[in-house]
Amino acid sequence: MTMSLPADLWPDVKPEAARRLMYAAVESFATVGFHATTTRDIATAAGMSPAALYVHFPSKSALLFEISRSGHEQTLALVQDLTSGDGTPPDKMRALVEDFVEWHARRHTVARVVQYELEALPEQEFSVVAGLRRRIEQAFRSLIAEGVRTGAFTVPDEKTAARAVLSLGIDVARWYSERTRKTPRALGREYATLVLRMLGSSAE
Amino acid sequence: MTMSLPADLWPDVKPEAARRLMYAAVESFATVGFHATTTRDIATAAGMSPAALYVHFPSKSALLFEISRSGHEQTLALVQDLTSGDGTPPDKMRALVEDFVEWHARRHTVARVVQYELEALPEQEFSVVAGLRRRIEQAFRSLIAEGVRTGAFTVPDEKTAARAVLSLGIDVARWYSERTRKTPRALGREYATLVLRMLGSSAE
Repeated sequence: MTMSLPADLWPDVKPEAARRLMYAAVESFATVGFHATTTRDIATAAGMSPAALYVHFPSKSALLFEISRSGHEQTLALVQDLTSGDGTPPDKMRALVEDFVEWHARRHTVARVVQYELEALPEQEFSVVAGLRRRIEQAFRSLIAEGVRTGAFTVPDEKTAARAVLSLGIDVARWYSERTRKTPRALGREYATLVLRMLGSSAE
Repeated sequence: MTMSLPADLWPDVKPEAARRLMYAAVESFATVGFHATTTRDIATAAGMSPAALYVHFPSKSALLFEISRSGHEQTLALVQDLTSGDGTPPDKMRALVEDFVEWHARRHTVARVVQYELEALPEQEFSVVAGLRRRIEQAFRSLIAEGVRTGAFTVPDEKTAARAVLSLGIDVARWYSERTRKTPRALGREYATLVLRMLGSSAE
């Protein structure tokens, strides 16, 4: 099957053969899951031999880890960029939700693989990714806490609120598809308004 | 592996051997995915022979369909029960979100399987489940529309709002685990407050 994966998923991955293997792996993991995919399937889809695959990745798990790690690192960079710096907490939250939602809508296939196959990661790799996830969640919580402190937000429970905001964004990857009529950008804007309301902001 | 699946997932499924097969299938689908599971795996986990499995289910797909269909039918019954009847739209929405969230937290493993493996259903079975999903989503949208009509809710876009409310509930199945400190009930109550805010209700 051919999926419409964005062409700019991993601009920094070199050489091009490694990137091609990552694309092929995402397609196969998305279609039949990590456990039903063989390294041969991935190599064949990338137009390579299994031996050529091993030049770039020592195992199927290594491919999944690279896909998961880079996805989480990119997300963390986006989140840190938008939560730090100047701006009021509502302004920063609006920008954060807009981009976080757009990100998950545009990259819905790879984001689904990353979310659904978390537990397929080997223990050490899992803990690296879990660490990145904690930092992403922490950035959301800090921004909410900052808003509560300055009186811009009022929430019953900061942790639950952060969880709900993150959850709304991540779940976009589950249901968004090329058939969705709303663009990723438009969806991000509407979700940002809903989130600001959820956080008791008067700035929606 | 042994998961802590609720004992009351399918009280109506008879005979008990069929129910045991459904539990074994959920465990295996949750662990390695539908495509990497064999009917032999499921039969063995249920303490039966593959031939005995076929007495109850003609295929692995038939098992997935039964798990998915019954999950969606139960959810639809819950949603219809809570959105019909008397009560103001905010009261009904509060009760709906409380129960919908609790439902997905308690049954997180089976709900994950149902959501993650939707596209593994054969075409006809998929369309049956898609029909149930449309009715569930429609019930959320109708309740929001009723609230907008009576002035209890104000939302920028009813479809997006319904999507966000559903999404918050469904995504609980992804992240909730036995290690989550908040009980399903407590989480449902907090989420109901967040949802009423999102819908512009003054009744939170």
